Amino acid sequence: MTQRQQGAAEIISIGDELLIGQVINSNASWMGEQLFLHGIALQRITTIGDDAGHLHDAISDALQRVQFVFLTGGLGPTSDDITKPALCDFFGVPMVFNQEAYEQVEALFARRGMVVTERNRQQAMLPANCLPVPNHNGTAPGMWFELDGAVIVAMPGVPFEMKPMFSEQVIPLIKQKFSTTHYLFKTVMTHGVGESMLADRIKEWENTLPKHFKLAYLPQPGIVRLRLGGQHDEEDVLRIELSEQIEKLCNLIPEYIYGFDNQTLEEVIGQLLKKSGRTLATAESCTGGYIAHLITSIAGSSAYFKGSVVAYANEVKVNQLGVSATSIEKHGAVSEAVAIEMALGLRERMQVSLALSTTGIAGPDGGTPDKPVGTVWIALATSKGCEAVRFQLGEHRDRNIRRAALAALGMIRKALVTA
Amino acid sequence: MTQRQQGAAEIISIGDELLIGQVINSNASWMGEQLFLHGIALQRITTIGDDAGHLHDAISDALQRVQFVFLTGGLGPTSDDITKPALCDFFGVPMVFNQEAYEQVEALFARRGMVVTERNRQQAMLPANCLPVPNHNGTAPGMWFELDGAVIVAMPGVPFEMKPMFSEQVIPLIKQKFSTTHYLFKTVMTHGVGESMLADRIKEWENTLPKHFKLAYLPQPGIVRLRLGGQHDEEDVLRIELSEQIEKLCNLIPEYIYGFDNQTLEEVIGQLLKKSGRTLATAESCTGGYIAHLITSIAGSSAYFKGSVVAYANEVKVNQLGVSATSIEKHGAVSEAVAIEMALGLRERMQVSLALSTTGIAGPDGGTPDKPVGTVWIALATSKGCEAVRFQLGEHRDRNIRRAALAALGMIRKALVTA
Repeated sequence: MTQRQQGAAEIISIGDELLIGQVINSNASWMGEQLFLHGIALQRITTIGDDAGHLHDAISDALQRVQFVFLTGGLGPTSDDITKPALCDFFGVPMVFNQEAYEQVEALFARRGMVVTERNRQQAMLPANCLPVPNHNGTAPGMWFELDGAVIVAMPGVPFEMKPMFSEQVIPLIKQKFSTTHYLFKTVMTHGVGESMLADRIKEWENTLPKHFKLAYLPQPGIVRLRLGGQHDEEDVLRIELSEQIEKLCNLIPEYIYGFDNQTLEEVIGQLLKKSGRTLATAESCTGGYIAHLITSIAGSSAYFKGSVVAYANEVKVNQLGVSATSIEKHGAVSEAVAIEMALGLRERMQVSLALSTTGIAGPDGGTPDKPVGTVWIALATSKGCEAVRFQLGEHRDRNIRRAALAALGMIRKALVTA
Repeated sequence: MTQRQQGAAEIISIGDELLIGQVINSNASWMGEQLFLHGIALQRITTIGDDAGHLHDAISDALQRVQFVFLTGGLGPTSDDITKPALCDFFGVPMVFNQEAYEQVEALFARRGMVVTERNRQQAMLPANCLPVPNHNGTAPGMWFELDGAVIVAMPGVPFEMKPMFSEQVIPLIKQKFSTTHYLFKTVMTHGVGESMLADRIKEWENTLPKHFKLAYLPQPGIVRLRLGGQHDEEDVLRIELSEQIEKLCNLIPEYIYGFDNQTLEEVIGQLLKKSGRTLATAESCTGGYIAHLITSIAGSSAYFKGSVVAYANEVKVNQLGVSATSIEKHGAVSEAVAIEMALGLRERMQVSLALSTTGIAGPDGGTPDKPVGTVWIALATSKGCEAVRFQLGEHRDRNIRRAALAALGMIRKALVTA
């Protein structure tokens, strides 16, 4: 066995529902982010079912590796909740009535104008060696254990109860009792470039990174996130180093960077439109309304987004956007000419600063040798005129729609930052 | 150590992004469901960072407990991808060039009209003892290892690449090589009814289910899936029993059932429209193009979907749909009158059999005492006239958009099946 790592943590998530795909383990993800923001290195998440033996093994293994072990789940009043008996068994202690925990449950019920039932009273039965952690949003108290310099904390699995308990009580107590190294991260959001090409463009810089920094490539369809993280005893030193390294990175690939720290393109565009007082509309064929959906998923988008014409049928392109039937006949619906006419027609009809259009073959059918599946024309009409770009995307409908929409948002962003 | 359990599985998810909360581990949840549906007992999910030592330990521990170990992540071409070197180290084998894997990468690139780069060529370097598993959607092949009757499979972390590899290749190979009991499932998709009411309607039938059958309620916003599963040594017997039970269930709640086995409402509507030769268009305010997006996410939807007017601004409702400015002034944009005028105006302009409109307050702002956030009017115009329904949804923008769209699709389906 490796030696226990001080300042490091593991999470143990408990519940059959997590193993059979009924519930996604978003608790662990949220806790992971909280821990990293507080400089506590989460090394492992172990998810097990409602099985006391597996829980016993998982706690015992985790305590050999790390100093902090956080448990969630299995604390309800029903028979499949195995955390408390398993902890008693692990520590070799009995379950005892905890007056402090009982008073907290009683106070919660009083606030809700309810009387404590026998079932709820049993929730104040806790392993004898624990310090109860008050649950302000439910009846199952958390439990804090210490053993040879390590800490084990058991919390409820209901996110609404666990989250405030973890961030307002557990983490502050850990920070107060145990000092830790500082960790800082910054994520650079890029669009319009693949992982391999990015790696080539930044490899010299990457190779010169100090040893206490680490770069991760996090690709999604159409987007690659570059996350740079560092660790250091002195937070101020680290903060300055990180910001210097991020600046170097930004200078290497300025044309691909649209934002930081999980911003979306639709958020960034919304901010740019609002700031400049400009308005937007879309005329969508192959993207089928997906761009409008992304833009209107942002609260407050009615301030700058007027609407969209989803022109799936050619007659809609003609009747609602003023595309000429001759252009469609001569060049086909997926063509530069039609994309441009769609954007210009839309801009006039909706009276917007920026009018964007898409026309393409999302697939799986409809491809030809000249225009295979994935061929997409995107046009953007502004006060300066109309620009159209041809993209050759992939074979899969879902991803083509997503990538065409991101390409379109990329063009809108570019127009807004260069105008 | 406990003895290895035959037929049981563990998942090891690899990636720093999973530990610091930047990516939720939905892969493991999806795989858990797949395994469950194929009768393979998932006992543990272990999530670790990009650390070769931790990966080595996790594989070694898992192999002591279970027969099948599935790895995802850490297979890309960049320096933080540690799975292949860690596997070489674990098995004590060198990395070698695999001609078969290379040809698969080459074929993928050829289909995309691209040339293999040196960096991509390196993805065909694999641990000497592995059987490559073709990746039809990316450049990193999967790897299948066998060791003393146990199986270790390493797959990419990108869901789009991992999912088809797992369900189309890995699981069938495991079923073929290692016989297991037969498991069969059928899922009934319901819409427009809550979990509790469903439970009341079907409880008598549920209580008479044979012991080797199990029913699960799987609620999502707006939809409840009822999954009935059974296990038996003889597949044919099980198949007949299952289909008889499903028939009984369907007869109890026919009005809520829109499909089976994860069919979506947009799929079902597409089939109904195609079969009846009717056409559809949408006029969307609060749903912002999301209904059009759902409908056009179905391949072949151009056969029945003509298009949409996303009328976010009132002037678009007036100019593009012919809504009267007086109606908006008198009743407000979120009103029965405006919803009906939108649907009727759209039906005339787009010349479709069914024209659907939405207007509502998605939130978080814009609510009033009379029309709080979540108020939505949906209207459907057909040859028989126009019907409008008011819905009172929740407080959250994302969920309101989603639930309004599902309510709209439900109305369209109803009109198609009763007409």
